[in-house]
Amino acid sequence: MTDSITATVFVGTSVDGFIARKDGALDFLPQDPEDHGYDAFIATVDTIVTGRNTYETVLGFSSWPYGSKKLVVLSTRPVPQPPYPEAVMEHMSGEPADIVRQLAARGAKHLYVDGGITVQRFLRAGLIQRLIVTRVPVLIGSGIPLFGELLHDIPLQHVATRHFPSGLVQSEYRIGGSA
Amino acid sequence: MTDSITATVFVGTSVDGFIARKDGALDFLPQDPEDHGYDAFIATVDTIVTGRNTYETVLGFSSWPYGSKKLVVLSTRPVPQPPYPEAVMEHMSGEPADIVRQLAARGAKHLYVDGGITVQRFLRAGLIQRLIVTRVPVLIGSGIPLFGELLHDIPLQHVATRHFPSGLVQSEYRIGGSA
Repeated sequence: MTDSITATVFVGTSVDGFIARKDGALDFLPQDPEDHGYDAFIATVDTIVTGRNTYETVLGFSSWPYGSKKLVVLSTRPVPQPPYPEAVMEHMSGEPADIVRQLAARGAKHLYVDGGITVQRFLRAGLIQRLIVTRVPVLIGSGIPLFGELLHDIPLQHVATRHFPSGLVQSEYRIGGSA
Repeated sequence: MTDSITATVFVGTSVDGFIARKDGALDFLPQDPEDHGYDAFIATVDTIVTGRNTYETVLGFSSWPYGSKKLVVLSTRPVPQPPYPEAVMEHMSGEPADIVRQLAARGAKHLYVDGGITVQRFLRAGLIQRLIVTRVPVLIGSGIPLFGELLHDIPLQHVATRHFPSGLVQSEYRIGGSA
């Protein structure tokens, strides 16, 4: 049932592997208008899956970044609705495999999995098929890491790497032979 | 006096940023004969600087990897001489800035700084000018990290990125506008 669903991580990190500073700040990410493929990527996604911390960071943005795409927020505690009329947010909790199964049963085809803890949980559970990491040319020394402990090695297949005038380097990997 | 000396880090890591497993094992690095530029790089180096842990790993190799290049081993404790007639090893200790100053005074032009703790100390001290990181397509979850805590952000200038048939992605960065 879940064979027809793909989960992708699309994320920017410092060269030393942090997706945010310890307090969630993203100030080290470039503010330039350079296109790093996000728009093309998000157009292929039907459901975004993230955790409470990323959701709370997003609520601090000046606008809702997901348009009318469905956002699933994973948390064991109640989650406030976003104050944007166009926003579609659903609160879920449970094991990653159950989340994917439920979303697949409801017709989801392409999940965008985001946020440090959530990405790590889905990777550990073997539920990520594509990893697109964009390295921002800076070392920040500490922060929220993209990757965490694993039960065993996860081999990656390199698909493509490109770099941008600003110095960002984006690599796409496939995991486990899936599409 | 140290303006005429350049220090480079040339290192392979897993995509999650580890240079070795916790016990020092390097089994996740490719064993293939693919040329990733190491020979061309090492030809430009006159002095290798590393710490005790990397030195002990190297002593376990089946041959001495540095030819007749000088290897400086940084350690606060005595260091055994390598059991290879061609090996040139010198034991030093002290702050990175002092090490660089002494080596520059003795005519060193291009240092290859290697090993987790040593790389981190030299980066923190602002003494690395070039960073060449080759990402091996695997996540290993834990190990000896390439990067560590910093006193402040270190901006990098992207120089070049190339990838190899085996899936390795190599990015070169310059630090602080130096050559």
